[in-house]
Amino acid sequence: MKLPKKIDDVIHFFQKIPGVGPKTALRQSLVLTKWKKDELKAFSMALDSLSTLERCEDCGLFSEGTLCHICSHEERKSESTLCVVENISDFMAIESSRQFMGVYHVLGGVLNPLLGIGPDELQIDRLIKRIKRDDIKTVILAVNPSVEGDATCSYIRQELIGDPIKVERIGFGVPMGGSLEYLDVLTISKALEYAREI
Amino acid sequence: MKLPKKIDDVIHFFQKIPGVGPKTALRQSLVLTKWKKDELKAFSMALDSLSTLERCEDCGLFSEGTLCHICSHEERKSESTLCVVENISDFMAIESSRQFMGVYHVLGGVLNPLLGIGPDELQIDRLIKRIKRDDIKTVILAVNPSVEGDATCSYIRQELIGDPIKVERIGFGVPMGGSLEYLDVLTISKALEYAREI
Repeated sequence: MKLPKKIDDVIHFFQKIPGVGPKTALRQSLVLTKWKKDELKAFSMALDSLSTLERCEDCGLFSEGTLCHICSHEERKSESTLCVVENISDFMAIESSRQFMGVYHVLGGVLNPLLGIGPDELQIDRLIKRIKRDDIKTVILAVNPSVEGDATCSYIRQELIGDPIKVERIGFGVPMGGSLEYLDVLTISKALEYAREI
Repeated sequence: MKLPKKIDDVIHFFQKIPGVGPKTALRQSLVLTKWKKDELKAFSMALDSLSTLERCEDCGLFSEGTLCHICSHEERKSESTLCVVENISDFMAIESSRQFMGVYHVLGGVLNPLLGIGPDELQIDRLIKRIKRDDIKTVILAVNPSVEGDATCSYIRQELIGDPIKVERIGFGVPMGGSLEYLDVLTISKALEYAREI
């Protein structure tokens, strides 16, 4: 099916979004062809302005100013607890639990030598400096379980050896509502490893 | 969760696309915040240029010029058969079956008095004039089954009474791979109505 280049271009960009396949991209693009000129213009401008999004100088979260609303929150800073997350989505997941009252640090990924992502790319030295500068007492590594995630946690742990800082990693095991019957062996192994006296 | 206005704006537009809910819109928008400046610019420009998409003067399909690649195809014109579809997606579905060799006409919707869509809004007079001008022998109404679709077909049928033109509507019944056991009563009724001697 030959479509005009203008539509193919939009389909091309939609397909670059993870989770959007050819069918969805086509359907979404066709819907957009029905939008009014000024709506398309507004959507287009909104997209373009994402490239000028400001980030918090300290933690890397989105901000409207030098520091984000969490890093500039005195009570949260005074907790002296820092939670390291891979990305903004993970930050939002933790924040929505309303269980964490400290500040965050967005790594922007995990160590992955195959993709050329080393400690420099993740600016881990900046994280370490910040931990020391802000007198953080507890670092919680909310890094997802994977070989790369594990390596990243080990690296950060290593960098903080010798400092009086508690470094924790979030717990792994059976998810709420989950059933052992349907869980993979790795999760079950982790659940046993993370067993705690009751 | 408070997000910067720039992201909220993009989420807002994604959510306007049918089938995109709040979670998908958020996820897609967050992905876009990681795109490079020039990629965002290109996506933004592609979207904006949709407002200058050209349409075929005859049938309403997308075109790159006055007439689309189907209306300017001599062999397809010479079939003297015109297929009326509601929208571009329906056109693509029929075209992908490779069973129809004539030309198309995109209505852009169906008659719907409640939404203020009458024969004028769908420019049905333009369709009728074209059928007569191009000496069309057979009109196939590939309009989806619904009260509004049925009314639209009746209206077009009415407008062509007295002309030596065969007006057909596509068949309804059990879809291929479908099973009577799981079909709704309306489809079963239609399948019985459309029964054909074998």
